[in-house]
Amino acid sequence: MDPRGAVAVGIDFGTLSGRAVVVRVADGAELASAVHPYRHAVVERQLPGGGPTLPPDWALQVPADWVEVLTTAVPKAVAAAGVDPSAVIGVATDFTACTVLPTLADGTPLCELPELADRPHAYPKLWKHHSAQGQADRITAVAEQRGEAWLARYGGRISSEWEFAKALQLLEEDPDTYARTERWVEAADWIVWKLCGTYVRNACTAGYKGIRQDGRYPDAEYLAALDPRFADFVTDKLEHPIGELGARAGGLTAEAAAWTGLPEGVAVAVGNVDAHVTVPAAQAVEPGRMVAIMGTSTCHVMVSDQLGEVPGMCGVVDGGILPGLWGYEAGQSGVGDIFGWFVDTSVPPEYHRRAEERGIDVHALLTELAAEQAVGEHGLVALDWHSGNRSVLVDHELSAVVVGQTLATRPEHTYRALLEATAFGTRVIIESFEAAGVPVTELIVAGGLLKNALLMQIYSDVCNLPLSIIGSEQGPALGSAIHAAVAAGAYPDVVAAAAAMGSVHRAAYRPDPERAAAYDALYEEYRRLHDHFGRGEGPGGNDVLHRLRRIRREAVAR
Amino acid sequence: MDPRGAVAVGIDFGTLSGRAVVVRVADGAELASAVHPYRHAVVERQLPGGGPTLPPDWALQVPADWVEVLTTAVPKAVAAAGVDPSAVIGVATDFTACTVLPTLADGTPLCELPELADRPHAYPKLWKHHSAQGQADRITAVAEQRGEAWLARYGGRISSEWEFAKALQLLEEDPDTYARTERWVEAADWIVWKLCGTYVRNACTAGYKGIRQDGRYPDAEYLAALDPRFADFVTDKLEHPIGELGARAGGLTAEAAAWTGLPEGVAVAVGNVDAHVTVPAAQAVEPGRMVAIMGTSTCHVMVSDQLGEVPGMCGVVDGGILPGLWGYEAGQSGVGDIFGWFVDTSVPPEYHRRAEERGIDVHALLTELAAEQAVGEHGLVALDWHSGNRSVLVDHELSAVVVGQTLATRPEHTYRALLEATAFGTRVIIESFEAAGVPVTELIVAGGLLKNALLMQIYSDVCNLPLSIIGSEQGPALGSAIHAAVAAGAYPDVVAAAAAMGSVHRAAYRPDPERAAAYDALYEEYRRLHDHFGRGEGPGGNDVLHRLRRIRREAVAR
Repeated sequence: MDPRGAVAVGIDFGTLSGRAVVVRVADGAELASAVHPYRHAVVERQLPGGGPTLPPDWALQVPADWVEVLTTAVPKAVAAAGVDPSAVIGVATDFTACTVLPTLADGTPLCELPELADRPHAYPKLWKHHSAQGQADRITAVAEQRGEAWLARYGGRISSEWEFAKALQLLEEDPDTYARTERWVEAADWIVWKLCGTYVRNACTAGYKGIRQDGRYPDAEYLAALDPRFADFVTDKLEHPIGELGARAGGLTAEAAAWTGLPEGVAVAVGNVDAHVTVPAAQAVEPGRMVAIMGTSTCHVMVSDQLGEVPGMCGVVDGGILPGLWGYEAGQSGVGDIFGWFVDTSVPPEYHRRAEERGIDVHALLTELAAEQAVGEHGLVALDWHSGNRSVLVDHELSAVVVGQTLATRPEHTYRALLEATAFGTRVIIESFEAAGVPVTELIVAGGLLKNALLMQIYSDVCNLPLSIIGSEQGPALGSAIHAAVAAGAYPDVVAAAAAMGSVHRAAYRPDPERAAAYDALYEEYRRLHDHFGRGEGPGGNDVLHRLRRIRREAVAR
Repeated sequence: MDPRGAVAVGIDFGTLSGRAVVVRVADGAELASAVHPYRHAVVERQLPGGGPTLPPDWALQVPADWVEVLTTAVPKAVAAAGVDPSAVIGVATDFTACTVLPTLADGTPLCELPELADRPHAYPKLWKHHSAQGQADRITAVAEQRGEAWLARYGGRISSEWEFAKALQLLEEDPDTYARTERWVEAADWIVWKLCGTYVRNACTAGYKGIRQDGRYPDAEYLAALDPRFADFVTDKLEHPIGELGARAGGLTAEAAAWTGLPEGVAVAVGNVDAHVTVPAAQAVEPGRMVAIMGTSTCHVMVSDQLGEVPGMCGVVDGGILPGLWGYEAGQSGVGDIFGWFVDTSVPPEYHRRAEERGIDVHALLTELAAEQAVGEHGLVALDWHSGNRSVLVDHELSAVVVGQTLATRPEHTYRALLEATAFGTRVIIESFEAAGVPVTELIVAGGLLKNALLMQIYSDVCNLPLSIIGSEQGPALGSAIHAAVAAGAYPDVVAAAAAMGSVHRAAYRPDPERAAAYDALYEEYRRLHDHFGRGEGPGGNDVLHRLRRIRREAVAR
């Protein structure tokens, strides 16, 4: 058959569920989708088999939950699409990153070995497992001391979420399990391994989460300086052949064909990451088009032909988004979840009643009331650090600041100030890119928040940029399907596939010059508060947020 | 009859109503009370006769409303007390300050002249009439330039609430009405004038609100520098014989006797102010006992034998509280109204439901939940400037700051942080007094907020001082009754009357050393934020609150 008449399956593995989408290869039409929630969701308190309470900031997952997505959501989506499984020419996946697990050499997760099922460290550590901060701090500090060149590629800070911090925590807290670890595998690659029987390390997570730069990882001497037992970590457990994004990792195994109902042998693409895979789905394949995937948090991804070392970005990786271009990543740790927190904790009954009477939700009501305000009318400026700051300060111990409330302040005022605060946060990131010689010319929004037109207009006005909107509601899964089509040979490369299958509404919002100018003044205030509260003690700086965090921890422990 | 078997009537003129209390002279027992709300309450939008909308920040009252308190609440209270009116030996009043009105030489309010009834400037300006800020700023600036010695007695700032600012506004905005003004009278003195037919200017408001220091007012040369037409203001309209507090202003006129049902000729005491008159009611007649009258806002009053010029205090006046001692006043413009604002605007339905189910109010529920927290557990620190800062920054254009919120912050966390913020505000005031050589050894609380035991304990812990509680729920009216008894000659002076008639529970709360130490750390943070946001642009300072206020004003005006 003509491969362009065929379909591809994209599977997006999120934090709480997996989603399969069946996409027509010719034009990217999304024919059907199905979602399957993970049986164990996020393991934060106790292992599935019981046992003691996990320490704070732990977040684990169960690999079998991911496999269930293959056995349920995939066949369901294909059935719903009304296509014959034989029309499927390829399958591709994207995953949260950095979700990482210890396995045997054959890919068996250590947590599936009966003798290790009660060991927390044998389980996959979810991206938001945040208890390796001490390790991350040392990884950064030792790299700084030794002048490791790769550090600047990560904005000068290595995150506690990434492969090395989590591995070092494993070594230090459970050396036995560390010793049993034969491979330290990104879940993004593990799921591909399950599909095609071949372990291929994808270029994206190897670069962003695995500190692979210019073809090399941190060397043994550096690793030994962290811990002598860690010296061989890369060679023993991490290093593995790299696959370019969009390349074929292998063919679907008989076992995986049985799980999914797809034909044995169809192309399985190299693994990928939910945010990064969205770039071709939004046709953001040219330099300077920054994609913001806005949901509970925001991830910014962009390709560029310029290599810039942007302070505080998450990372720049050669081929990390599209082969042949530098891929940039930055992020904001709290966005939609800040708005959600506000609605849950800070809005009085009257508003809930009014929303209910009108059959809308409280977000919609507050948005409506916020939209009536002129820029600056609320007299407020806020720092959007309720969940810390991912870029450019890279500091999860920061917290929020709200400035300017009076007895006349109403919930819709503070709500709008919080919407704006996240837009200011995005502008800080854009300006950091530009200051490092990496221009940003357009903002393309994907993710659930794009439905809020006021929020979109605020972002456009605050950043003084045209704002485009992805055409799909399931960007990551569509992006995966694009990669599946490429892996199957239906298109010569991801750029060509994106042109045919991706979709975007260009400049759906344009900045209003008057509002943009008014926002410049408020942004100036945000920027000053950002540096004052975010850059530690020093001339003009106040490290109160860290001290409050410490006081809080001590008070709770007492 | 033995005057100690007799009763005195104290009348407290508040912002919205007047309260009469009948008190036994022998022991201060409060036999009965009655309240009468003002018919026109606060005139903020339109004069009683109609006409155009008043400008923002205007707040007027109607003198006839005050007289109605005499004709209704007083006879009602006397009847409820079950005493024969002939048992009444004296009557005294206290009033809000600085509520001030233009009158003819015989005391007729200009607003009662038919030809001026439609002139806003002919009406009494309530204490919280805040539209003379421009005049107040010039009064301060010109005094600074000329090195006027009296300025330091007011902490370096003259308030827009006081006699000179309001008079200058009258002159500049309505020169005709200014020209008709024969006397510029504090309502505290006007009501006494109505009772006894004699105009006596009380030492308290003359000093605190009328800039009378060392027996003199600002001189003509200074006044001319403000406006040449203002040069004769003091000699023409303001200057008048002073009465000491507790002295007899005169005897009840036949007219006033008819209004009140009290015997003609009984002693009428010199006028007084609600906060200041509370000092003897709380037996705070020795130096160092600071009385905090805590309600929607807090007023701090204290006598001392030390003269200190405390930066940012409201004022120090010789005999301003008790004859023979220096009387100090300071204040916080927002306290209970901040907690009220929070409950009204920032608490979700679940809390309202829980409170209703338990038959308590939301304040009680939040207080209960706040009481479970260890000091610092919420990770927050707030600046309590939702309504500006009266002392020590004397700046009504400031606004609030909340630092440290996270997605884990619950309403009871922020609520406690706001309680604490007001306690920190009090500590700043106490420390300013001590730094100026005026020691504070005890905090005595009066007013509605004393019922909140958690709040009281927080104040004791934060200020590291024993905290006493006034014994009366109607402190100002009791204080007035004490002055009535002195004016009637039942006691030789206010101190002696206070010992017999006042009441206080000494050290009802004591600081806990561990909590006090924990609060020292949080107070340190408050103090730094206070100076950073409150002292304008400069080394380590950020004037963002004023800029946000300006941006807001401009946005609303657009």
